[in-house]
Amino acid sequence: MALDLRLSSLDITRAICDVYSVSGSERHLADLIEDALGAYPHLRVLRHGNTIVARTELGRSQRVVIAGHIDTVPVNANLPTRDIEIDGTPYLWGRGTVDMKAGVAVQLKLAAELTDPPIDITWMWYDNEEVDASLNGLALLAAQHPELFVADFAILGEPTDGQIEGGCNGTLRASVRTSGVRAHSARSWVGENAIHRAAPILMRLAEYRAREVAVEGLVYREGLNAVGISGGIAGNVIPDSCVVEVNYRFAPDKTAAEAAEYVRKVFAGFTVDITDAADGARPGLDAPIAQQFLAAVGATAHPKYGWTDVARFSALGIPAVNYGPGDPHLAHHDEERVPVAQILAVEEGLRAWLSAR
Amino acid sequence: MALDLRLSSLDITRAICDVYSVSGSERHLADLIEDALGAYPHLRVLRHGNTIVARTELGRSQRVVIAGHIDTVPVNANLPTRDIEIDGTPYLWGRGTVDMKAGVAVQLKLAAELTDPPIDITWMWYDNEEVDASLNGLALLAAQHPELFVADFAILGEPTDGQIEGGCNGTLRASVRTSGVRAHSARSWVGENAIHRAAPILMRLAEYRAREVAVEGLVYREGLNAVGISGGIAGNVIPDSCVVEVNYRFAPDKTAAEAAEYVRKVFAGFTVDITDAADGARPGLDAPIAQQFLAAVGATAHPKYGWTDVARFSALGIPAVNYGPGDPHLAHHDEERVPVAQILAVEEGLRAWLSAR
Repeated sequence: MALDLRLSSLDITRAICDVYSVSGSERHLADLIEDALGAYPHLRVLRHGNTIVARTELGRSQRVVIAGHIDTVPVNANLPTRDIEIDGTPYLWGRGTVDMKAGVAVQLKLAAELTDPPIDITWMWYDNEEVDASLNGLALLAAQHPELFVADFAILGEPTDGQIEGGCNGTLRASVRTSGVRAHSARSWVGENAIHRAAPILMRLAEYRAREVAVEGLVYREGLNAVGISGGIAGNVIPDSCVVEVNYRFAPDKTAAEAAEYVRKVFAGFTVDITDAADGARPGLDAPIAQQFLAAVGATAHPKYGWTDVARFSALGIPAVNYGPGDPHLAHHDEERVPVAQILAVEEGLRAWLSAR
Repeated sequence: MALDLRLSSLDITRAICDVYSVSGSERHLADLIEDALGAYPHLRVLRHGNTIVARTELGRSQRVVIAGHIDTVPVNANLPTRDIEIDGTPYLWGRGTVDMKAGVAVQLKLAAELTDPPIDITWMWYDNEEVDASLNGLALLAAQHPELFVADFAILGEPTDGQIEGGCNGTLRASVRTSGVRAHSARSWVGENAIHRAAPILMRLAEYRAREVAVEGLVYREGLNAVGISGGIAGNVIPDSCVVEVNYRFAPDKTAAEAAEYVRKVFAGFTVDITDAADGARPGLDAPIAQQFLAAVGATAHPKYGWTDVARFSALGIPAVNYGPGDPHLAHHDEERVPVAQILAVEEGLRAWLSAR
């Protein structure tokens, strides 16, 4: 089988969804993409592992990166794809339709079609987005080929329900600890119960009202949550240690360092260890090229809550947004499905911008 | 080696401590005890596994059971025993000196010596007290030979610092659960955090003031404690479940069923599963035979907080107390040691009562 990029974006979606590419198994799909693009002389095609890059080199004054990942989370009896209808609306159903092969299909179709765009385009299709960050194809490419990441703007095709989602929240994990004194539970007053001492930690979390923060016109909703708790030695021992694992999702007006300071303040009086932190990304919608993109697509910008690879572009100083078909709530879902009309709408939106003079 | 019961109770303590008898390895010590007692025609000696019973059968109107366990917790470089002095006070140091071979030694000496006590005596030395209750030699004997458990009073030689400790608290374990709704932690407001919902459980525990309850003149101190807590699925998931493991030590004015009802009331609004419960034991000090014992020994009665085998006697309708040499706080301790004077004091106390006319 070969991949025919002259098909409709719906048919390309169907074709690439039916090629199994759970993280770690992207080779075959990467081969198909590389072969299909090879037929288009306006593109310079590069390969790095199972990540494929295709660039126009037209000497334009501006360049945009448009990227998508080609792996999916594990299949759960939801392949091959099926055409279904819900309340009269046609959908393509199956693993990867939302996250994010419909987005990739639109990108592939336009990569083949747009031989003379007004701005240079670097298309990137990468592997291992759904697994550990150390395997992420985009991150590995950026580390090896920073020259490919010189651009004025970036668009990631993650599902946004056809909206434009700017930037993303940062994320930080911390361990909040209490200590006490062990004792036999028959003489509990001899000890000091570390689990009881965690009560104020949980109270602060339960009473916490997350901020909503406007950044460049978009309102980001934060979240501060316990994602784990553990303590206890045996059924007859007063425990001397308790740990609450906390995840703070913070708006991109804060750096990870500021977020850490904030979390330490919320849990003042307790031992706080920051275990993990990643900066968010400012939406970058104040850049003129971003404004042109918004105007051409005719969509409204929204904030992205989850951390996505746009933060990698942001960290490189490249304003970046998410724009793709599919409801993000259905990503990873067994009933993952994308409205056919949304695939076409995103195709039209990107084409409108990339064809404008 | 044979065990000579004409030695002093201190020398018998030293002799039997130096016979290794960690739970499961009591056979040799049981053999020595059985052989030593065989020389005394006033005793009928029975054996059940590694539990030795020796009875007088003098046709007295009352009978007392006097019992002690012959196993110890594991040795940790604290055998053989040594004679030591702390601040001028002589001690016997080593594993088992407190818990509870000094008590067993006193019992063995008096079993051999008291050929004509005013009340019949059933002496019991049993195995496997320090491990799972299903192995407990006293419990197994009671199940197989209930006829041996017909008595008016029972004394257990567990360490009480030479005091008389009546009855014991009951103990109950419960799981107190919360539930919630899972969600990605980037959109935490879609979920409901079960760990946050556990805040009131910990608050109630932290604020809980344990009762002190007078039962037959003794004041029992209760305790309600978290002994474990767990919750959490992954670092980016709002957890839908949290469990707090609670241990309630309750005074013997309550049955285990009443204690369960009480715990359910304390944690009203949460799911409470009772996982384990054991009745306490009333001190039984209002019985005339117990009053005579107190008077003869000349000691004051105190409450016992921990659950001990006296509760087994109590469950069979036999008032029971603990009375033995050694500080219970040093039981299981690597520096386990018994004051020599306390061994002799307990010997004198028991002899005074069991020789009175």
